[in-house]
Amino acid sequence: MTDKHVEFFWDVASPYTYLAATQMDALAQRTGAVVQWRPFLLGGVFKATGNQMPAALPAKARYMAVDLQRWAQSYGVGFHFPKIFPMRSVLAQRVVCAAQAAADTPSRLPLALMHAYWVEGCDLAQPDEIARVCEAAALDADALLAAAGQPQAKSQLQVNTAEAVQRGAFGAPTFFVGTRMFWGNDRLPLLEACLNDRLSV
Amino acid sequence: MTDKHVEFFWDVASPYTYLAATQMDALAQRTGAVVQWRPFLLGGVFKATGNQMPAALPAKARYMAVDLQRWAQSYGVGFHFPKIFPMRSVLAQRVVCAAQAAADTPSRLPLALMHAYWVEGCDLAQPDEIARVCEAAALDADALLAAAGQPQAKSQLQVNTAEAVQRGAFGAPTFFVGTRMFWGNDRLPLLEACLNDRLSV
Repeated sequence: MTDKHVEFFWDVASPYTYLAATQMDALAQRTGAVVQWRPFLLGGVFKATGNQMPAALPAKARYMAVDLQRWAQSYGVGFHFPKIFPMRSVLAQRVVCAAQAAADTPSRLPLALMHAYWVEGCDLAQPDEIARVCEAAALDADALLAAAGQPQAKSQLQVNTAEAVQRGAFGAPTFFVGTRMFWGNDRLPLLEACLNDRLSV
Repeated sequence: MTDKHVEFFWDVASPYTYLAATQMDALAQRTGAVVQWRPFLLGGVFKATGNQMPAALPAKARYMAVDLQRWAQSYGVGFHFPKIFPMRSVLAQRVVCAAQAAADTPSRLPLALMHAYWVEGCDLAQPDEIARVCEAAALDADALLAAAGQPQAKSQLQVNTAEAVQRGAFGAPTFFVGTRMFWGNDRLPLLEACLNDRLSV
């Protein structure tokens, strides 16, 4: 039997991560899996592995703009490509690390931040915008932003990023079921097959 | 109503193209679509767009080796990563262009060549291996190999490749439904949604 525990490495700045994130609660319900939301820094992953964002290739960027809309349609979720892209996500990711140290609902703040960026187009490089999202999610924005500047939150984000790379990650979203890695929103069906014991590798 | 005509640009040397190819007859049956198999040269697409094969990144290559096995399992098709990879596919693709000029069943020779490479591990850069596959598919191998060396087949392959790039392709497999492009084996569900009039973009 496969251990029904999924580690979900995510960065609010990644569009395919947003799409996958919108599906995780339903996937967890269907499979009985527990999803652990692990913030990391996609820029750090790219730097460590030599990978680059897909939009770096002009033909791929043009295709992606349409492809993302198609996924959003097929999932029935909002999506508007933000004016500010790429966006510096390090502060938002540190805030989530800080919130998790004091944590309650693991998906609430990540999903709220992704919605703010990928549906509403907020610039989450700005502390004020992050504060607004935290408050709307009934979290103490001032405390979280202060904690995000402390070594513990900074270090946690670095540790998560380094660990993901060490385990094989090169992009986002990246999922692990034990040592088995799945990369990409488009691999959710394979992740689900794994959780349902229908894959041997 | 979406025009149920799919142009499928494929290169025998691409593993995700092989996986997608194994699904096309069933997809055509389910949707009522007609699939036009259009050989192109992935190397030429990469050169024209600045893209490179995913396996060029070491971390991605390691993941791909597992990912391909998972797709093959989920499709229930054979798959063994060939010893010879990447493989020079230009002659095989020209032979298919020649066969199409005299054509009958459009998927028979492409599928036979892909099976020879991705299941049996044959080196299709060798004319003898291509000849063996043609003969097993009840085609005149000598005539096809001779025609593959003629300007018509060479030119057809160049034209297909240049047209795909001009229309937006940067990898393989690439599908078009009119002007709507879909890239990758993992986009077959979106291609099918498009054929079933469930996508507006």
